[in-house]
Amino acid sequence: MSSIDFAALAERDHADPLAAKRNLFRIPTDTIYLDGNSLGLMTHATATRVQEVVQRQWANDGIKSWNQHDWVNLPSLVGDKIAPIIGAAPGQVICCDSISVNLFKVLSAAIKLQDGRTQVVSTQDNFPTDLYMVQGLSQLLGEKHCALTTVDENAILEQPSQFINEHTAVVLLTEVNFRTGRRLPLQQLIAHAHAVGALVIVDLAHSAGAMPVELDAWQADFAVGCTYKYLNGGPGAPAFVYVAKRHLQRLNQPLAGWFGHAQPFAFDPVYQPADTIKQMLSGTPSIIAMSAVDAALDAFTGVDLQQVREKSIALSELFLELLASYDFAHAFECISPADPRARGSQLSFAHDDAYAICQALIEANVIADFRAPNYLRVGFTPLYTSYTDIGVAVERLAAIMQEESYRAPRFQQRHAVT
Amino acid sequence: MSSIDFAALAERDHADPLAAKRNLFRIPTDTIYLDGNSLGLMTHATATRVQEVVQRQWANDGIKSWNQHDWVNLPSLVGDKIAPIIGAAPGQVICCDSISVNLFKVLSAAIKLQDGRTQVVSTQDNFPTDLYMVQGLSQLLGEKHCALTTVDENAILEQPSQFINEHTAVVLLTEVNFRTGRRLPLQQLIAHAHAVGALVIVDLAHSAGAMPVELDAWQADFAVGCTYKYLNGGPGAPAFVYVAKRHLQRLNQPLAGWFGHAQPFAFDPVYQPADTIKQMLSGTPSIIAMSAVDAALDAFTGVDLQQVREKSIALSELFLELLASYDFAHAFECISPADPRARGSQLSFAHDDAYAICQALIEANVIADFRAPNYLRVGFTPLYTSYTDIGVAVERLAAIMQEESYRAPRFQQRHAVT
Repeated sequence: MSSIDFAALAERDHADPLAAKRNLFRIPTDTIYLDGNSLGLMTHATATRVQEVVQRQWANDGIKSWNQHDWVNLPSLVGDKIAPIIGAAPGQVICCDSISVNLFKVLSAAIKLQDGRTQVVSTQDNFPTDLYMVQGLSQLLGEKHCALTTVDENAILEQPSQFINEHTAVVLLTEVNFRTGRRLPLQQLIAHAHAVGALVIVDLAHSAGAMPVELDAWQADFAVGCTYKYLNGGPGAPAFVYVAKRHLQRLNQPLAGWFGHAQPFAFDPVYQPADTIKQMLSGTPSIIAMSAVDAALDAFTGVDLQQVREKSIALSELFLELLASYDFAHAFECISPADPRARGSQLSFAHDDAYAICQALIEANVIADFRAPNYLRVGFTPLYTSYTDIGVAVERLAAIMQEESYRAPRFQQRHAVT
Repeated sequence: MSSIDFAALAERDHADPLAAKRNLFRIPTDTIYLDGNSLGLMTHATATRVQEVVQRQWANDGIKSWNQHDWVNLPSLVGDKIAPIIGAAPGQVICCDSISVNLFKVLSAAIKLQDGRTQVVSTQDNFPTDLYMVQGLSQLLGEKHCALTTVDENAILEQPSQFINEHTAVVLLTEVNFRTGRRLPLQQLIAHAHAVGALVIVDLAHSAGAMPVELDAWQADFAVGCTYKYLNGGPGAPAFVYVAKRHLQRLNQPLAGWFGHAQPFAFDPVYQPADTIKQMLSGTPSIIAMSAVDAALDAFTGVDLQQVREKSIALSELFLELLASYDFAHAFECISPADPRARGSQLSFAHDDAYAICQALIEANVIADFRAPNYLRVGFTPLYTSYTDIGVAVERLAAIMQEESYRAPRFQQRHAVT
């Protein structure tokens, strides 16, 4: 017998101001999807739009679509749809490439602006691709021109001046830690960085669409982010990049592809960057992939991100509360901050059998994910996760733990993507 | 009255060994599509596959698809499908990012290999993005470390030693000129470059899928190419990159994103490139876009590229022959080489009214395109262009020219994409 009061959860769903948004999404049958922090679910509108772009625009109108369906402006149109979600005025955000590639653009450009300073400071447990891109640039330019220093998250918070100071060219911070869900106080760190003349690049992979973000108000210099997590743009969907207006006129980003040219269709042999955010474009963008992002973003129409945040916190607190009522709970060490304001929209638990438990959950249609070495991650996507979902998820987890079904050999077998 | 013998053209279509391939494509109603050199048409299989990836894989299976549908290996699976089309043994080609971004990877890596040499030689009329990417790298590294020299195509052919010599680090050559359709003798230029210790990067944007390419036999070092032209992968589809096996163990490409790591899902904080072609990956690839490429490539199953080439030449020669029978033909100056072996799969004509004529053709459902300053480009895609198509296209062009309908004001109006 379950100790979970599903009637109470149904009431909370009924009272949820975001409840209607769930209907925009295709929820897989009988599935509790708690992995929107890795790959968001699809909206019905997205499927329709992809169909439209493929079957009508490309198939019927072919090359004419670049004008007729304004494909040529899609990256900036999508960018301006993302802008209000991350607290940016129009004209500062564009959709293109991947986070990694966009990071390289703004990182190279930022280092150039910081004539003489060469140090890039980031956190040790930042998402690896962020660190790799600095390492790649450092190898290309030489350590003399770009060197990565990684610092423990606690240390950077406790003694910011020790790590972010007059030697620092760029600070590269991901707001929400992908493993632990810990959320860094960006506004405060940006203010500190600026006070010592450092520029700040923010990675919003686990923030955009999950909580209010205020890039302009925080005076962030640059940001990159992902559209396939909380923005539901589809697997490997094009990323976004933000450049504060004050920097647009003085940047040189090295991935100077033809779409970033002031007049791409003049076919000028000399690169002359656009003086708008389009300077961040490089090669021809994937129109099918970007159209999916464009359609998915419509789910945010009329959404108050403060409400999203409140529901995210309520969902995670509910998960913790329900979990705590079971005996097996003591074996799950929550490595996310106890204070919900200090975490993103996920909870992470260390457990020796995290991998097998995650596989058993997936077999029970509770989609969570695993991160090395032994973390079970549970993500909350307020636009489609319901309170009832959380009840069902914990109930299924309880069954797996109480019956120890996760010990079955089939759950030990490692997949390519873990 | 038309002077074109359509019965004879129908007979040629009947005898065409590639004729059946046309049925794989969705040909827009009543349209003669002569722009496959810009954006290839869609196959029916591609539409089905996109639908499958969106509606079943993403929507139903969500994050599990990375394993279940092998999304994680899609870039190399698609690469190995492209490989035989460009004369590459398996394991040397991967699908990802754009030509521009891929060029940056191999260019940076190649310059590093050429310790001390800094000169990148290319042609003046190369596709601009190729030149821009060198300019971008040059600006990032400084002219001391990477400097672009552009040379006239004729000069490089007539006096290769003057331009490609012991100072040359990298030669960057596009096989087929996007404006004129002129085809460079790559094998010969590569041999010359290697004799003086230079490395060669080949851009196959207008070659791959249009003619036999023999990267391995030519001993090309690196290549990049496009999947949205003759490979029909969809608007802005992910590009490909080739690295000759002999270089795979000694490269460092700077866009060191997590998908290029030897073990991406170990989330190692230190970048360790894969020792396979996967080292050319950077960020998370767009699965929807890449699945479209994968499906489109199936149109090449069983195709003999020598037959493709022969039909391409036959189509272009037919176009020239039919055009020449009209009085207005003298105003069209063919700027493509007269020898069909010296051109790609397109013809380009200079005409003072090229822009308006192109617009009038498009209105008459003959899809060609315009390139500045005054070129009309006509592309031939042997998998779906028929001999009858060429007859209809020339007939419609003749009507436009004889009635001077292209002089209507609506055809003068410039679009964003020209």
